[in-house]
Amino acid sequence: MLEDLKKQVLEANLELPKRNLVIYTWGNVSAIDRKTGLVVIKPSGVPYEDLKLEDFPVLDLEGNKIEGKLNPSSDTLTHLELYKAFPGIGGIVHTHSPWCTIWAQAGKPIPVLGTTHADYFYGEIPVTRKLTAQEIVNEYEKNTGNVIVETFKNLDPNNVPGVLVSGHGPFNWGENAHQAVENAVIMETVARMAYYTQTLSREANPLDSHLLDKHFLRKHGANAYYGQNTKEQK
Amino acid sequence: MLEDLKKQVLEANLELPKRNLVIYTWGNVSAIDRKTGLVVIKPSGVPYEDLKLEDFPVLDLEGNKIEGKLNPSSDTLTHLELYKAFPGIGGIVHTHSPWCTIWAQAGKPIPVLGTTHADYFYGEIPVTRKLTAQEIVNEYEKNTGNVIVETFKNLDPNNVPGVLVSGHGPFNWGENAHQAVENAVIMETVARMAYYTQTLSREANPLDSHLLDKHFLRKHGANAYYGQNTKEQK
Amino acid sequence: MLEDLKKQVLEANLELPKRNLVIYTWGNVSAIDRKTGLVVIKPSGVPYEDLKLEDFPVLDLEGNKIEGKLNPSSDTLTHLELYKAFPGIGGIVHTHSPWCTIWAQAGKPIPVLGTTHADYFYGEIPVTRKLTAQEIVNEYEKNTGNVIVETFKNLDPNNVPGVLVSGHGPFNWGENAHQAVENAVIMETVARMAYYTQTLSREANPLDSHLLDKHFLRKHGANAYYGQNTKEQK
Amino acid sequence: MLEDLKKQVLEANLELPKRNLVIYTWGNVSAIDRKTGLVVIKPSGVPYEDLKLEDFPVLDLEGNKIEGKLNPSSDTLTHLELYKAFPGIGGIVHTHSPWCTIWAQAGKPIPVLGTTHADYFYGEIPVTRKLTAQEIVNEYEKNTGNVIVETFKNLDPNNVPGVLVSGHGPFNWGENAHQAVENAVIMETVARMAYYTQTLSREANPLDSHLLDKHFLRKHGANAYYGQNTKEQK
Repeated sequence: MLEDLKKQVLEANLELPKRNLVIYTWGNVSAIDRKTGLVVIKPSGVPYEDLKLEDFPVLDLEGNKIEGKLNPSSDTLTHLELYKAFPGIGGIVHTHSPWCTIWAQAGKPIPVLGTTHADYFYGEIPVTRKLTAQEIVNEYEKNTGNVIVETFKNLDPNNVPGVLVSGHGPFNWGENAHQAVENAVIMETVARMAYYTQTLSREANPLDSHLLDKHFLRKHGANAYYGQNTKEQK
Repeated sequence: MLEDLKKQVLEANLELPKRNLVIYTWGNVSAIDRKTGLVVIKPSGVPYEDLKLEDFPVLDLEGNKIEGKLNPSSDTLTHLELYKAFPGIGGIVHTHSPWCTIWAQAGKPIPVLGTTHADYFYGEIPVTRKLTAQEIVNEYEKNTGNVIVETFKNLDPNNVPGVLVSGHGPFNWGENAHQAVENAVIMETVARMAYYTQTLSREANPLDSHLLDKHFLRKHGANAYYGQNTKEQK
Repeated sequence: MLEDLKKQVLEANLELPKRNLVIYTWGNVSAIDRKTGLVVIKPSGVPYEDLKLEDFPVLDLEGNKIEGKLNPSSDTLTHLELYKAFPGIGGIVHTHSPWCTIWAQAGKPIPVLGTTHADYFYGEIPVTRKLTAQEIVNEYEKNTGNVIVETFKNLDPNNVPGVLVSGHGPFNWGENAHQAVENAVIMETVARMAYYTQTLSREANPLDSHLLDKHFLRKHGANAYYGQNTKEQK
Repeated sequence: MLEDLKKQVLEANLELPKRNLVIYTWGNVSAIDRKTGLVVIKPSGVPYEDLKLEDFPVLDLEGNKIEGKLNPSSDTLTHLELYKAFPGIGGIVHTHSPWCTIWAQAGKPIPVLGTTHADYFYGEIPVTRKLTAQEIVNEYEKNTGNVIVETFKNLDPNNVPGVLVSGHGPFNWGENAHQAVENAVIMETVARMAYYTQTLSREANPLDSHLLDKHFLRKHGANAYYGQNTKEQK
């Protein structure tokens, strides 16, 4: 069942330790098959080096397990809320990658300080509000998804493919699982450079809006001219 | 004598350079056999790559050498005090891992700034008071153990499996030697992210207590739901 | 056509991920054949591990493609402006290497804080002014080259082989493609040490001019005495 | 001639890139044969991977070349001044290792902030005064040696086996070339932790003198009890 998707999700999960986004079992990748509405996600607490194709649970969007013996990631309900709210995305990744996590812990959005950011994120990377006590005690993981969706009520998740959950860490997404992980790697790099830029100079200003447009749009959208295709081969 | 325990302690010691917690001979792991009350510990000043099973001294809890030719770690008496005071622990590790060491040198506890911390440490990671001149001059290593025990007089060492010794560095423990080292790796990661969070934003606040509870308790205790067992397979 | 130059440019591009100056496709190296005025440059958006000799486009200094099927780097027009304005250079590299990028994002030149800097850069490493909205909207890449040239109107590019483009990142050059990459590696190291020096001590002063002269001139110029030749074998 | 010493110096030089103290040719190690007063030192500007035993020049303490075709390190005269002034040392290393270099660039001594420092350096690691214009212009390398010696007029170089040259970088020494490099690795680690300690807490205080004594003397001197011998096997 969904063998190709499972293979993609397995490979994308293995990318996490390889790219230094996780230690131990601190991250999970999922992907959705939009035709059937079924989601494949990493099983909970299994070390990356032990993952096998048949270990990956398959769930529907309500969280019912359709296939698989193992428990899905404890963050599954967050993933499902995002798939329901953001129809353009095909893969999601959550980690505690250190540079994004420190911005999440500080409760601060990552400002657009340079063209590296602008090449991939069309505006600042937002941070969610804090969850209320009630939202933490009941349905915590689902509410984490809801607060991300709330954060994007005036934002296009296809133009800003990531978010910081306050006090917690990053979530990223993309057209598929691989693209989600690539966005996570890039957001980590952007977060790191933003930290050093701001501690070097507290007066560092956000990028000029024309430069933001130029860099984002030369890589994305109808008039993109980066790469070997008219539209960048993401 | 205690061959399985020696093997575990050897492997746990080798994990230290592999996980970048030590250079040269800057760290030691021990474990206790609770039935006999005997402790196996790294010999003093021996490079990790030269360690052999038969090199590991076996001591009783009063520090008498029961087996082995080599001198035990110069920190042995600290380990023994902890085994005596904390009956729930089976392994101890001491290193000068850089991120924990800088918090110890600054004399500051590590506040709970995010869920990564809350997943493993149920509250801030404490720092001991400074030793007095008298405590340094006489029985320094034993007194180092005592000041750690004093620091935990109102804390459960099973819920906060590590401490910073002021001006010195970290000690960690766990159910066994491997678990102690895993806690050391995690505390190092938490210490690093706490440094960057606080230098990014001096106003970063400790995590909401509901979120601390949620994260610690979903991984630990009777109602844990992380991983593949009812109780997490640590 | 220009097989030796293509080989040099290929090798120099492969040096970028090896020296940790880039991730994904975030950098490009070119070189010029001064006899014919033809330039070889990395194709746009192609991963380093997939690069083949025959992939490298050959262009004239006006940007006309003379050979090759693939699109050249989207930064090509910046490279061409520099080759036209700086006749002493043979190779150029552009990356988003993190330490240089944070200085570019902060909009600050890198001051001469030590002899490591003075060994290779005869004075501070300048940062360009910001481009105007007009310069961004029309002919952005060409104008990026122009603003670099403007920055060097009173500077010798052979004595200061690199620049920071405000809000963007570094460009470096040298006698050939390899020398350009070496200068990029060194500028990255200098940028990193300058960050830490200034955050350690906001009062750190630029190096005494006699020490700047001593270090730059013992490695460069007619009276150089570093290395095994009268003039250093760069 | 002095084949064993050359072998030791070759191995110690190769340790520099392996321990991440240098890139390119940014460091040199020497050793002295105290019986003959002859010094073996790295040749200038030769990459570490190309070094061969027969490349190493042999010099007397006045700097006359006794054997070898290649030019000695441009820092040779600094090494010779130290061998003349510090009779207890057998090996010297100079690098631009980044963490020591930032303290040198900031012009600040490294305070004793923890026991890691105290285990190897019996007091703060001093920084030289700046050289005068005259000292830079004439006999710069010899004067660099002299200003180090001046810095130690009230210090025992055997108890503090390293120094920061203001605006430049570190020199370390030891009983032999290997010990000098080990001290350089340790000083780099101490410098890094001191940076982070001070930026975490500007009020971090130097270690209590009893703790400094305890740690230095349990590893060094007549009553040392660290390691497997009465006196530590350095």
